[in-house]
Amino acid sequence: MAEPVTVDDPADPRLADYTSLTDVELRRRREPAEGLFIAEGEKVIRRALAAGYRMRSLLLSEKWTEALGDVIAATDAPVHLVEPAVAEQVTGYHVHRGALASMERRPLPAPAELLAGARRVAVMEAVNDHTNIGAIFRSAAALGMDAVLLSPDCADPLYRRSVKVSMGAVFSVPYARLERWPHDLDGVVRAAGFHVLALTPAEDAVDLTALTPPDRLALLLGAEGPGLTQRAQRAADTRVRIPMSHDVDSLNVGAAAAVAFYAVSHPVSGRAPIPE
Amino acid sequence: MAEPVTVDDPADPRLADYTSLTDVELRRRREPAEGLFIAEGEKVIRRALAAGYRMRSLLLSEKWTEALGDVIAATDAPVHLVEPAVAEQVTGYHVHRGALASMERRPLPAPAELLAGARRVAVMEAVNDHTNIGAIFRSAAALGMDAVLLSPDCADPLYRRSVKVSMGAVFSVPYARLERWPHDLDGVVRAAGFHVLALTPAEDAVDLTALTPPDRLALLLGAEGPGLTQRAQRAADTRVRIPMSHDVDSLNVGAAAAVAFYAVSHPVSGRAPIPE
Repeated sequence: MAEPVTVDDPADPRLADYTSLTDVELRRRREPAEGLFIAEGEKVIRRALAAGYRMRSLLLSEKWTEALGDVIAATDAPVHLVEPAVAEQVTGYHVHRGALASMERRPLPAPAELLAGARRVAVMEAVNDHTNIGAIFRSAAALGMDAVLLSPDCADPLYRRSVKVSMGAVFSVPYARLERWPHDLDGVVRAAGFHVLALTPAEDAVDLTALTPPDRLALLLGAEGPGLTQRAQRAADTRVRIPMSHDVDSLNVGAAAAVAFYAVSHPVSGRAPIPE
Repeated sequence: MAEPVTVDDPADPRLADYTSLTDVELRRRREPAEGLFIAEGEKVIRRALAAGYRMRSLLLSEKWTEALGDVIAATDAPVHLVEPAVAEQVTGYHVHRGALASMERRPLPAPAELLAGARRVAVMEAVNDHTNIGAIFRSAAALGMDAVLLSPDCADPLYRRSVKVSMGAVFSVPYARLERWPHDLDGVVRAAGFHVLALTPAEDAVDLTALTPPDRLALLLGAEGPGLTQRAQRAADTRVRIPMSHDVDSLNVGAAAAVAFYAVSHPVSGRAPIPE
């Protein structure tokens, strides 16, 4: 157990992991380089620990020592007690959730290793919005996806905002990054026995409700706005669409992902096989 | 056709509809009281007009007169040309989309009138976040819901942010407000022949995938966080849940709504009837 230590000086080097949390550009560079990420709030901290991430340190205000008593008792990491005003000076914002943990990143698994034990995989292309990444992980976890693969230009699922929006789902769904895009869709994903579906609103795509989901499937999702690139669509086995009414031409990416995750696990009655 | 008129003075009373658009509290009071709402950007303005809303006036920068030439030619409403800096002084923000329209509200239909022609209805309870309202309307429109009913404390679907997030879907799905909550679920909705489903993550609710959707159904959705009140759940015929994996306990309200809209229109093979 670590004895909580009060820290009064916002410039104290022991608080270095938590500085300038609102500077997105800075933190995006620093966190992967230093091998850390920030978990915010009791629930998310507990979920990170339960997923086996090692805690580097805790930063919290006095009143959170009781709620997190068991976490403090079980850790060897330093526990820094700070006044809310000090926390705000260090981080750059008012820490509503009262507790932050600096957690140690783990090496990501190789995509092939991840695929070996999976049947339903979500693959994101160029999703570089932290809120969307987090929302998609939350839905992927809830709706039965076994793993997530990211194109090289996707945002970091362990960035604070992604973690928070995912409600910790980034810890429970394993993920990996593909290195060569979109070539690895063939060389890695299809090579592992996966049928690759590309989600698009295009009229000429196969209606998801008319699909018999293949045994092992990878579902490609593009970013809000541009959607999947033509290259990624061409690298897929089948382009699929969610049927839409009221002349609506698209859903937001979070809603589309959620519906598609549900649909591939819950085929509609009267379904037809995938066209060859 | 209205001849566009350049307005240089941000205090010009002809621009009064557009003042202080970033002051949410002020606009929430003013817009319903004055019978107007603001449509932002070419696409949303065109959708509002296509849905039959009358335009009170247009405010745009010079370079948008060409793209909106046909709209300007077809309207009798005054067209105000302003420099971007003037637009910013009036509205309080930089108007990226270059064009704003002040549109006239219409009286909402009575709920009973709306229900007469509908089979699938979304009912929101206390959804008071404009982004969530907009996102749910967009999904409702895309995924086959015929109408939306709002509890008295839901936010305004015609507030600028809701309209924008919905991509104009608030114009294409008819909606109405229930007056007595939750009593009208019985007196109005069930009285019109609708089976009322309440969406909840509770373990003891009926799995949506095991449901044979009734002919006419109303799907109740609660706000992010608290979810549906106990009162609303008791007023429903059947409590239903989306099955979840990875120990996830909930979805965000936008994702949950989208999945539920899809699920009630696309029953899963091997489904069972609703328990009585």
